[in-house]
Amino acid sequence: MKDIVPSLPAGAKCIRCRGQASIRMSSHNANMCPSCFRHYFHTGVRRAMKKFGLPHRLPLMVAVSGGKDSLAVWEALHGLGYDTKGIHVDLGIDGFSGQSSEAVQRFAETRKLPWVKYSLREAFGYTVPEIQKRTRRKICSVCGLLKRQLLNRLAVKEGFEAVVVGHNLDDEAGRLLGNLTRHRTRYFEKQYPFLPSTHPRLPAKLKPLYRLEAHEIRTYCKIENIIPVEADCPLSKGATSHAFKEALDFLETRMPGTKRDFLFTYLDRRNPPRDSSPFEPCRECGEPTYGDLCSVCRLKSQLAED
Amino acid sequence: MKDIVPSLPAGAKCIRCRGQASIRMSSHNANMCPSCFRHYFHTGVRRAMKKFGLPHRLPLMVAVSGGKDSLAVWEALHGLGYDTKGIHVDLGIDGFSGQSSEAVQRFAETRKLPWVKYSLREAFGYTVPEIQKRTRRKICSVCGLLKRQLLNRLAVKEGFEAVVVGHNLDDEAGRLLGNLTRHRTRYFEKQYPFLPSTHPRLPAKLKPLYRLEAHEIRTYCKIENIIPVEADCPLSKGATSHAFKEALDFLETRMPGTKRDFLFTYLDRRNPPRDSSPFEPCRECGEPTYGDLCSVCRLKSQLAED
Repeated sequence: MKDIVPSLPAGAKCIRCRGQASIRMSSHNANMCPSCFRHYFHTGVRRAMKKFGLPHRLPLMVAVSGGKDSLAVWEALHGLGYDTKGIHVDLGIDGFSGQSSEAVQRFAETRKLPWVKYSLREAFGYTVPEIQKRTRRKICSVCGLLKRQLLNRLAVKEGFEAVVVGHNLDDEAGRLLGNLTRHRTRYFEKQYPFLPSTHPRLPAKLKPLYRLEAHEIRTYCKIENIIPVEADCPLSKGATSHAFKEALDFLETRMPGTKRDFLFTYLDRRNPPRDSSPFEPCRECGEPTYGDLCSVCRLKSQLAED
Repeated sequence: MKDIVPSLPAGAKCIRCRGQASIRMSSHNANMCPSCFRHYFHTGVRRAMKKFGLPHRLPLMVAVSGGKDSLAVWEALHGLGYDTKGIHVDLGIDGFSGQSSEAVQRFAETRKLPWVKYSLREAFGYTVPEIQKRTRRKICSVCGLLKRQLLNRLAVKEGFEAVVVGHNLDDEAGRLLGNLTRHRTRYFEKQYPFLPSTHPRLPAKLKPLYRLEAHEIRTYCKIENIIPVEADCPLSKGATSHAFKEALDFLETRMPGTKRDFLFTYLDRRNPPRDSSPFEPCRECGEPTYGDLCSVCRLKSQLAED
């Protein structure tokens, strides 16, 4: 296993077992061996799940894109004894969605884990590229909205009360930086790794990887022989969310540990999200919404107009 | 004058006078000619001074390091009819302080502006390099503390009620980002371009360049034939304040206007600093302080111990 992640010279010691270390963890100013790293990684996930306070036996629906994060969180939760089922939504993006589905299938088959696949076109009526052609809105934000809403609905349909997503420390810290620099105070309430269920048709949302950095997840994938989809989404180039993560990466190289401190201090100082204001049923689909029409039906009607 | 700042092709039009533009202002998505740029720059300073609400006739002591910012703010305030006097503190840094003093002298002589020079060693007992040898604290933070405190004292001694410093938009936005990412909430109160006088021995502090970006100040210097000291302070390499400014520069290139929005929205949403808690006189020097001993006397006693 030592050869899997060789990044340190012979003689470097693991901070936990004092054996040969092969993994450099600059934000902790420490080195680790693969076995202790796996323990560290699982501890991160375990601490997150403990914070969320759900019963250990609650079945979890894991939203899997086929990328490193969603496969890693699925692997870790399964390894920690959680009852999991994967859910994958085919977005219909040429040269990307096919590979993504294959990565999920390969992962699930190897581990004999149950999963289910939906297609965005069947569930919503359009693929992501078809939506992009018909809207002037930023496609990453539309795609994110649809994935959030559809995952809620499909999870309820599949009988689950909790949905797991793969968002990691970098994602959450980047989002926090973006919201802070643009003073998007209305988004702060939901800037939290656990959103409780506030309606029978809205499952709880969990981000068990919020304590783990992107590079740690890449290392975990290597150690656990997880083979995520290699391609990046071709439609997400130049997304502003990337810019905030890159700015934080820059600060991290200059001041190791900045990213963790930034996110964790924020989370420590704030209260968990409160119960939100009462929902009304959407007049089209009956799903809970704040307005007259839910965001999915609103988008659908906008797309039909054009 | 067109040739001074040639950065745009022939035919590019000034957004204000429609003449040939030579200055690109990406954060405003606009181009300008040098004459209209000067007007823009002076408007920025005028708007800042109006916000501060001091009488126009109040004599201003301008803290001048010899760098682009302090010389530019002095030039602009003088141009706008303010009664100014420069104050320069020789920090005793080899190969830098001499050049800095020369830049101030050259600027003031050309414009026939009054100024006074002090030396840190005479005023405090040590040069900055001597302090660096005797303390483990970060030298930029110690030097900043000393300059702030000594400028207050020297300004009062010179009979001024207000001190002007050259901090620009990049400085203030970088400081805000640093305080936000490190959750240094106790510094937020003073994160403001104007600090009123709260004690007879504490002059008001003004940052008239807080609306102007570093690159705009460089352009202004070229237009006004201001020749600042060329060298950077040799002791400030790797200062964390630089890292936050660089991170913002990166975001600015990806999303022009981010820096301005970030700082201005913050300032718009907050209240000006309140009157601070009552001071006590320092038991050594009698200057107003929150504790028993002021920070200057505390530093002095620490340096004498080693």
